[in-house]
Amino acid sequence: MSLLRSTSINHHISIMPKLVLVRHGQSEWNEKNLFTGWVDVRLSAVGEKEAARAGELLKEKNVHPDILYTSKLSRAIQTANIALSVSDRLWIPVKRSWRLNERHYGALQGKDKAETLEKYGEEKFTTWRRSFDVPPPVIEDDSPFSQKGDARYKDVDPNVLPQTESLALVIDRLLPYWQDVIAKDLLDGKTVMIAAHGNSLRALVKHLEGISDADIAKLNIPTGIPLVFELDENLKPTKPSYYLDPEAAAAGAAAVAAQGKKK
Amino acid sequence: MSLLRSTSINHHISIMPKLVLVRHGQSEWNEKNLFTGWVDVRLSAVGEKEAARAGELLKEKNVHPDILYTSKLSRAIQTANIALSVSDRLWIPVKRSWRLNERHYGALQGKDKAETLEKYGEEKFTTWRRSFDVPPPVIEDDSPFSQKGDARYKDVDPNVLPQTESLALVIDRLLPYWQDVIAKDLLDGKTVMIAAHGNSLRALVKHLEGISDADIAKLNIPTGIPLVFELDENLKPTKPSYYLDPEAAAAGAAAVAAQGKKK
Repeated sequence: MSLLRSTSINHHISIMPKLVLVRHGQSEWNEKNLFTGWVDVRLSAVGEKEAARAGELLKEKNVHPDILYTSKLSRAIQTANIALSVSDRLWIPVKRSWRLNERHYGALQGKDKAETLEKYGEEKFTTWRRSFDVPPPVIEDDSPFSQKGDARYKDVDPNVLPQTESLALVIDRLLPYWQDVIAKDLLDGKTVMIAAHGNSLRALVKHLEGISDADIAKLNIPTGIPLVFELDENLKPTKPSYYLDPEAAAAGAAAVAAQGKKK
Repeated sequence: MSLLRSTSINHHISIMPKLVLVRHGQSEWNEKNLFTGWVDVRLSAVGEKEAARAGELLKEKNVHPDILYTSKLSRAIQTANIALSVSDRLWIPVKRSWRLNERHYGALQGKDKAETLEKYGEEKFTTWRRSFDVPPPVIEDDSPFSQKGDARYKDVDPNVLPQTESLALVIDRLLPYWQDVIAKDLLDGKTVMIAAHGNSLRALVKHLEGISDADIAKLNIPTGIPLVFELDENLKPTKPSYYLDPEAAAAGAAAVAAQGKKK
């Protein structure tokens, strides 16, 4: 409202779209060291606390999302619901899309990370986890961890739903949604919050910051700490993105990086 | 999906739209005996439990909403979020509208019910609470309980936002949303869940069941118990509506009726 009023009075005042990314916190499977991907596990009690902290930060730092985007996975939706409850913005409009889902982990979904390492060896294991464009083997339809027949995707053409993904494939399916849907709200001057996952958010940050295919492997987004992009009218960042709690973010990113090396 | 598949194979199989109404449970102000209306109070711990029970009922009785509608008020949104979390449907699409809000209680908002009775007398008090078309006095813009300037309504023409409402006025502002928006999802064969309020749901039930202006005063919808309407292709009920827990609903309606008489 204030933005619209300002522009109607001062035509030269530009609208400053803001993008707020929130990576969901600890899930029940993070705790168990299992590959998750599209398996719909819930937040752990720790993850719920992380989401509440995200909401406190939004409130403290006066970041007020006008609209929420989430993946179709419960852990991201829980994160958003808790954060917006704490920050008194439960009432904003919501859009959900499978295109914001975590990377599909193929045949590794539901598998123990340590066992997978043992079974396939260090080289394959590291390649599947950290290479830009090598996906794990596809998941079989009869796997208990396949999303075949999952009601939440019933409105999606089955041919476009993945059975495994590399980060490159995540970018391919995420960018059309960014360009066709999310971009419109930003171009309207809205503050857009996206509650999603480590890899779908890495895909988006890679695009926004022009990070190379080689360098994206080094980007670790900490959980539960809102990451803010201030954008211009071409949706290019006007300054470096920033976390609402930079100290916690630095500690969190280091922890995520360490976890990546573990086992 | 199953519905669409059925129709494509058997053209004579009709789509059976289902409407599920959930009235939010106890709020912090229900406990304090204050008029609430559009004031954005939260669920109490009891209200959260009621919402979880609604979710259990949806799951137990195999009622699976395809889309959620809520008002713009936190207590209805909290109710939906909790119920859908418990019933494993967090991922369904959501639409929110002020047209599903509780009745605006005008100058009574934020006032103690007992004090209001004393100040205005039994006749006015009862008329404002139970008459069909006599609204309380309008709320002043400078009241701490006015919604003037509330960011959640910034996209709504200020001229259509109420400063007080009777049940008749609630019907007037709710029906266009029912007809133009909610009806479309039902006509697509979807199971639609609406999480809202005592009076906005009474307005809708009055319309669906053709209840007279005189008789609607006697309708008490219990909190936290999903009320299901099975509809035909003209969105007329094909049979009497039913609660997912009829015994609890009967007890709940009696409690609400008794509360109406209290003080």
